[in-house]
Amino acid sequence: MLAELRGLNEECGVFGVWNHPSAAQMSYYALHSLQHRGQEGSGIVVTTGDSLQARKGLGLVTEVFTAKCMEKLQGTGAIGHVRYSVGGTNGYENVQPLLFRSQTGGIAIAHNGNLTNSLELRVMLENEGSIFQTDADAEVLAHLIKRGGNTPLPERIKWALTQLEGAYAFVLLTETELYVALDPYGLRPLSLGKLGDAWVVASETCAFDLIGATYEREVYPGEFLTIKDTGLSSEFVAKKASRALCAMEYVYFSRPDSNLRGKNVHTARKKLGKALAQEHPIEADVVTGVPDSSLSAAIGYAEASGLPYELGLIKSRYVGRTFIEPSQSLREQGVKLKLSAVQGVVKGKRVIMVDDSFVRGTTSTRITRMLKEAGATEVHVLIASPPIKYPCYYGMDTLSASELVAANYDLKEMREMIGADSLRFLSVDKLQEVLGSPNSRDDHGLCLACFTGNYPIKGDDHV
Amino acid sequence: MLAELRGLNEECGVFGVWNHPSAAQMSYYALHSLQHRGQEGSGIVVTTGDSLQARKGLGLVTEVFTAKCMEKLQGTGAIGHVRYSVGGTNGYENVQPLLFRSQTGGIAIAHNGNLTNSLELRVMLENEGSIFQTDADAEVLAHLIKRGGNTPLPERIKWALTQLEGAYAFVLLTETELYVALDPYGLRPLSLGKLGDAWVVASETCAFDLIGATYEREVYPGEFLTIKDTGLSSEFVAKKASRALCAMEYVYFSRPDSNLRGKNVHTARKKLGKALAQEHPIEADVVTGVPDSSLSAAIGYAEASGLPYELGLIKSRYVGRTFIEPSQSLREQGVKLKLSAVQGVVKGKRVIMVDDSFVRGTTSTRITRMLKEAGATEVHVLIASPPIKYPCYYGMDTLSASELVAANYDLKEMREMIGADSLRFLSVDKLQEVLGSPNSRDDHGLCLACFTGNYPIKGDDHV
Amino acid sequence: MLAELRGLNEECGVFGVWNHPSAAQMSYYALHSLQHRGQEGSGIVVTTGDSLQARKGLGLVTEVFTAKCMEKLQGTGAIGHVRYSVGGTNGYENVQPLLFRSQTGGIAIAHNGNLTNSLELRVMLENEGSIFQTDADAEVLAHLIKRGGNTPLPERIKWALTQLEGAYAFVLLTETELYVALDPYGLRPLSLGKLGDAWVVASETCAFDLIGATYEREVYPGEFLTIKDTGLSSEFVAKKASRALCAMEYVYFSRPDSNLRGKNVHTARKKLGKALAQEHPIEADVVTGVPDSSLSAAIGYAEASGLPYELGLIKSRYVGRTFIEPSQSLREQGVKLKLSAVQGVVKGKRVIMVDDSFVRGTTSTRITRMLKEAGATEVHVLIASPPIKYPCYYGMDTLSASELVAANYDLKEMREMIGADSLRFLSVDKLQEVLGSPNSRDDHGLCLACFTGNYPIKGDDHV
Amino acid sequence: MLAELRGLNEECGVFGVWNHPSAAQMSYYALHSLQHRGQEGSGIVVTTGDSLQARKGLGLVTEVFTAKCMEKLQGTGAIGHVRYSVGGTNGYENVQPLLFRSQTGGIAIAHNGNLTNSLELRVMLENEGSIFQTDADAEVLAHLIKRGGNTPLPERIKWALTQLEGAYAFVLLTETELYVALDPYGLRPLSLGKLGDAWVVASETCAFDLIGATYEREVYPGEFLTIKDTGLSSEFVAKKASRALCAMEYVYFSRPDSNLRGKNVHTARKKLGKALAQEHPIEADVVTGVPDSSLSAAIGYAEASGLPYELGLIKSRYVGRTFIEPSQSLREQGVKLKLSAVQGVVKGKRVIMVDDSFVRGTTSTRITRMLKEAGATEVHVLIASPPIKYPCYYGMDTLSASELVAANYDLKEMREMIGADSLRFLSVDKLQEVLGSPNSRDDHGLCLACFTGNYPIKGDDHV
Repeated sequence: MLAELRGLNEECGVFGVWNHPSAAQMSYYALHSLQHRGQEGSGIVVTTGDSLQARKGLGLVTEVFTAKCMEKLQGTGAIGHVRYSVGGTNGYENVQPLLFRSQTGGIAIAHNGNLTNSLELRVMLENEGSIFQTDADAEVLAHLIKRGGNTPLPERIKWALTQLEGAYAFVLLTETELYVALDPYGLRPLSLGKLGDAWVVASETCAFDLIGATYEREVYPGEFLTIKDTGLSSEFVAKKASRALCAMEYVYFSRPDSNLRGKNVHTARKKLGKALAQEHPIEADVVTGVPDSSLSAAIGYAEASGLPYELGLIKSRYVGRTFIEPSQSLREQGVKLKLSAVQGVVKGKRVIMVDDSFVRGTTSTRITRMLKEAGATEVHVLIASPPIKYPCYYGMDTLSASELVAANYDLKEMREMIGADSLRFLSVDKLQEVLGSPNSRDDHGLCLACFTGNYPIKGDDHV
Repeated sequence: MLAELRGLNEECGVFGVWNHPSAAQMSYYALHSLQHRGQEGSGIVVTTGDSLQARKGLGLVTEVFTAKCMEKLQGTGAIGHVRYSVGGTNGYENVQPLLFRSQTGGIAIAHNGNLTNSLELRVMLENEGSIFQTDADAEVLAHLIKRGGNTPLPERIKWALTQLEGAYAFVLLTETELYVALDPYGLRPLSLGKLGDAWVVASETCAFDLIGATYEREVYPGEFLTIKDTGLSSEFVAKKASRALCAMEYVYFSRPDSNLRGKNVHTARKKLGKALAQEHPIEADVVTGVPDSSLSAAIGYAEASGLPYELGLIKSRYVGRTFIEPSQSLREQGVKLKLSAVQGVVKGKRVIMVDDSFVRGTTSTRITRMLKEAGATEVHVLIASPPIKYPCYYGMDTLSASELVAANYDLKEMREMIGADSLRFLSVDKLQEVLGSPNSRDDHGLCLACFTGNYPIKGDDHV
Repeated sequence: MLAELRGLNEECGVFGVWNHPSAAQMSYYALHSLQHRGQEGSGIVVTTGDSLQARKGLGLVTEVFTAKCMEKLQGTGAIGHVRYSVGGTNGYENVQPLLFRSQTGGIAIAHNGNLTNSLELRVMLENEGSIFQTDADAEVLAHLIKRGGNTPLPERIKWALTQLEGAYAFVLLTETELYVALDPYGLRPLSLGKLGDAWVVASETCAFDLIGATYEREVYPGEFLTIKDTGLSSEFVAKKASRALCAMEYVYFSRPDSNLRGKNVHTARKKLGKALAQEHPIEADVVTGVPDSSLSAAIGYAEASGLPYELGLIKSRYVGRTFIEPSQSLREQGVKLKLSAVQGVVKGKRVIMVDDSFVRGTTSTRITRMLKEAGATEVHVLIASPPIKYPCYYGMDTLSASELVAANYDLKEMREMIGADSLRFLSVDKLQEVLGSPNSRDDHGLCLACFTGNYPIKGDDHV
Repeated sequence: MLAELRGLNEECGVFGVWNHPSAAQMSYYALHSLQHRGQEGSGIVVTTGDSLQARKGLGLVTEVFTAKCMEKLQGTGAIGHVRYSVGGTNGYENVQPLLFRSQTGGIAIAHNGNLTNSLELRVMLENEGSIFQTDADAEVLAHLIKRGGNTPLPERIKWALTQLEGAYAFVLLTETELYVALDPYGLRPLSLGKLGDAWVVASETCAFDLIGATYEREVYPGEFLTIKDTGLSSEFVAKKASRALCAMEYVYFSRPDSNLRGKNVHTARKKLGKALAQEHPIEADVVTGVPDSSLSAAIGYAEASGLPYELGLIKSRYVGRTFIEPSQSLREQGVKLKLSAVQGVVKGKRVIMVDDSFVRGTTSTRITRMLKEAGATEVHVLIASPPIKYPCYYGMDTLSASELVAANYDLKEMREMIGADSLRFLSVDKLQEVLGSPNSRDDHGLCLACFTGNYPIKGDDHV
């Protein structure tokens, strides 16, 4: 599914490294590999042991960091962040890591996820004298840490974490320590690795591959890691709940070369495609996927169905932010950008178009029309996940319930809406068969709230 | 195969449009869809009927043309060009179309291909008083046209074309006409289409799809088209030779959604992959391709062999020109960019890695090592075309014979060089079975010179 | 004197406007006219009545604000700031106005000056739970305001101001009010004007001239202005001390077309030059000044002495930040930038070179050598102010005492150091005659601390 | 006078250097010092001895040349050019030096001036087979040189020069020689200097000062210099006419620190101001000049009249090309940019406003109004040169006769038009007294055609 065409935004990415001679460079390459999780802005904070240096900016990693500014970021510990696009005039302020300096030292914080009680916490903190310069949950955490009084910093951080509700994967950096924290449900992914003598953490394992690090394990739900020159130590801040990893990380967000809890994402998606073929066998000539996130599922569908897999849709490689959009009249004349149907492949064919997920239906509508205009005789839209019917409060920027098509229309209405000859979804049961259920014991539990409305955190169904 | 890693450059692209109210806009979108053929620079010249306006620059189409400069390019006829990277300090001068102004009117010229007698022509023209400001073959044509004396312009162009040897697809624009010319062997692709009442020509049909134009036919070898307000007329400048379209356009250069002489490129590549599977069945676990140009062949191989097709290699989407390259020491520490092997897919597997073509072997060497480091137990490299043994004089920027690996080593040596468990090529015979032979009568002849050394133009084997 | 060549940085500038339909535009032009006070960064915050919108950035006003971003800054009240260069990797955070948002509304703050107790305040505030993201004194004020508890905002601001020591000219903006505050000594300049129905405040009156506003009066020392839709009201937060305006505003910082307390800066400088001629008549052929800040004094010296005033030194107009600096070897070969001596004017002449002030002596040394190389037979350096011997704690970024040449060397040593035939300074007495003394009753008192060591605020001599 | 406000454009600048280890760097700094002669574009061509390397671009010298591109320009001989603004979409093509390559070597050409027979030459050359890619006279010269046939290059250049009519200062560079040519009347300035063992030529001597070169002499009218490793040789292509240097170079174009034929420009302008005071003594309070070009004349007027010289007008330093222009309504509200009157100086005063020249009267009108709005009781406009009544064909981009105010209105009408209390011009006689007459024998002849209509080249009054 094309991110541009729907209300499903990517989810930020965090990275941390400790005890590496090129900590900032490693962060740069790692953020680059996490760039699909956020393109609005990025930042790196590095510690020299004595002080924290930051570089942040709006734009892609390659735009924010020049060779010159990288030279200034010297140190052996660092954290970094990529941020997804939210618009607004105040963009820069919200670029993370946020950096707070005090007479006794600084602290930098980067966050992936979404707190469900941030507004309550802000009101409480403002009443107690806090003032806020950003909209970031990371600033809420910083104020809570400060509220912890005169106890040592790690104690204050742990206390602050107990005040939070919702989803979070935090990395925090001081002059002399790297801290890592994951929420009690492990809603967002976070992996731990080794790079020579250095420890690394990242939202996705593809960051490890790029910098040549080896995967050690997932960070556990509720875990709090302290990493410093004397080594790594682990504690649990909240009682360990069953993990409830966001299923959409498998379905859409993560890169196909990442592993989530040891499962390769491409392979998982391919299995979803195969399961889709078992649930919904369809008589057709070719199978095609929507680049890039649906290709794995389409390959799986084709393999299981025995139908040929084809490149029926091509995504343009050179459309950038500076592209001059065609005017309305040009668009009506047929000027198509970003994605085009391959006539030579679909003309005269019955086409199965596999997409990874279904939010507003806009992509499906456009692609179905495109394929028909290119000569497809039938277009069958098959979605390799269940319909999204419930809003997400844990960091996935879906629409509100009123905008979620599947929350408001039945299958027949949706099929008519998109103009396809058929529309089918993978069932929740099949999805669980492939990816694991919310109740898995062995750390493989999932959050399926957007499909089922069963939120892992009690009370969130009333938010 | 990754263009960055080898001596095989893309081949420029041309576009022309006549009688369209948004001629420059159409050129902009068309050049955008042809961008894979050249990223160094691009230009558009438009005619208002009275005068020619140009905009050219170094960089991507999106960088050269701003909304502001597009507003100035008003007119109903236009030509455009994208140019591939050749480096050098004098880049701008060589960006096309070249524009020549005289007291009696101007002429703009854009060229795809390579003349084999351009040096002789330059010496002759210089002896007769011509001076040159660029290295472009288009400037040679301009001087020849001027040498034609006082006869009408179309006559002078046609005479000038008869002086040329080698490969060319030209578009020429004056205040009141669009001319199109293809060399007698049709070595480079050039298609004719309609967009409402407008005529369009483009190096590839994907440009037509983007702007909503319909394909009419190929421009014929040796054909000379005159397009003006009274309509289109066709002549043949040289006696019509059998077409000898560059086989590498199918194998590597063209976009998978383009059709060449009615054959879809993706489909052709997939057939090459299937043929490869027939010629070289291999016992293995997974099939993977090198993004982006080899994916079709890999899918074909998988389909024919019954082995699963997997995304074993991932290309980074966000590596741009401003990327900070890892230092040698970082590279040795394992920092990988642009392309990475997917451990979750290849670990413990016997991998068939399909690539489209084989020039210097550098890509194959790197990818083989990458796959083995990611845990592949065997790596079999299968190339969906024959080895390139002979230099190209017709516009494909291959290396000289001494640098072409296959011209200097035998199969065993090459396999050892790249470190693969096996290395196999598609045979010339199988390639001809799929794509057509040099001797095809029905306009489907191919140039296979880089594989066979049989150059379609007599004498070029002695160049 | 050339700012680039010495440790004397310009001093920020602030602007505020209320009740103008183009509040942001007026701020843009005003900041442009205050640009000489700071080139590192600038920002504007505007209120729509309901919410605050900000735009800030590093660079010149013309670089930070594009036509597109100005369109978004709609509202009838605004404040703006230009910031002088301090370097550092964390530049953006310190660009003002700072903007603080809370559930009950926002507040934006811009500051010119320097608090002498900011470190104590930070320590105290941190102990009470505040966390800091910037180095700006404006953030200290914001936290103090928050500490004021539940009393109405104006009360809290006034209480916060009573906690501050040192120099400040503040503008503060909420959704519905503009507040203005000047420290009890009026160390930094701040003027009030009218623009139609709108109120405006600015660090210098040149901002009023540019936007067509009329000057009303100076803001008084210790004054606190509240400006809202119901009009302007004035209060005094501290008991009104005698004004002690920074003498260097006349000597160096302010633009020659600004008026400080009704006195035109060019005219004041010219008078300083005349006084210098009276104190130090010298037999010579020509008088010249160092562009741009010393020209007025040089003109005054020439007029009083009867010697011809000449353009003996030329400043380059096109040297920008992107200029490629000559290498050391080129510099030794004689490549001169930014400033050059006019051979045709000084050759064979006895030259009086008037400069406005004397900090490190670097400029004088370079210019004396330049003039001699250009053929001057004698170079007499005359400084139109007394030697700077004491550090400033009120916002002028002078060097520490150990770096101030005049604090460490006597006149003869300094003359030898710069290689001039003579070196003379205006006396403190003459300066007071022209500009007013520290003890003036009629609001014309000056701070002469950097010349005399008599700091207006008790205790600052022990800082 | 402000260039922005009138039809009087600056006139390009050329530079050449031979036998210097940092030839390109010297060109860079020299072009920088000549930047006032042209801001649209600039270029440098350097020879390594074997080949020519070029770098050109639109924009200021600092924008065109980066540190990186300067590194590539290695060689010991170079020429450079700055070009004034003419607009047009085809800007780049006209940026000089033009570079022509042939199989036997290249030639680069840069030009300052204007040929009066370029159109005839183009028609002739086109008839003989030449084709043109630019509007530059330099391209005409290149074609003429090529027409010279098989004779050695210097002979061909000399023959080509004899075909030219009008004004030119040419520098030409081949792999092994630097050629310099000045038209038979020496209409444009061109000086010769030494820099260690290297020869340098430049449009103005300020370029010599910046790079530490020493002035040798003027290039003579009609002179042709050949500079190569064996030394410099001089010839005269045309019989030596009396020099007729453009008087406007003294009045307006050249930098005040340049010397023209040994006369310092600032000093000459000051003398013009003194002469103006003698011709037109006026009872007033202050004298002020229009920055920057009129300041010298104003200083001279003040000195001769005994009236005080004041900074009554201030030019903004930070208005750049990216400045957001005030809308018409804002302009009517009084927003003033670029130039402002200093109220503190002119209020209640009778002001003499000295300007260097008078073309369209727009500047005078605006400034007079500005001064009156700032409180001046009388404004007397005194122009330090005669009225411009005739068009220039030699490179000064004045308006056509119909647009030259002084060609169409009498003194009284012009005074009323600009709203001044009086308007006076320096007489042609006084100008000649100061600067020299058209008939000077001693190489000090002037072209006064724009004042008198007496064109030095016979027949140009009928152009």
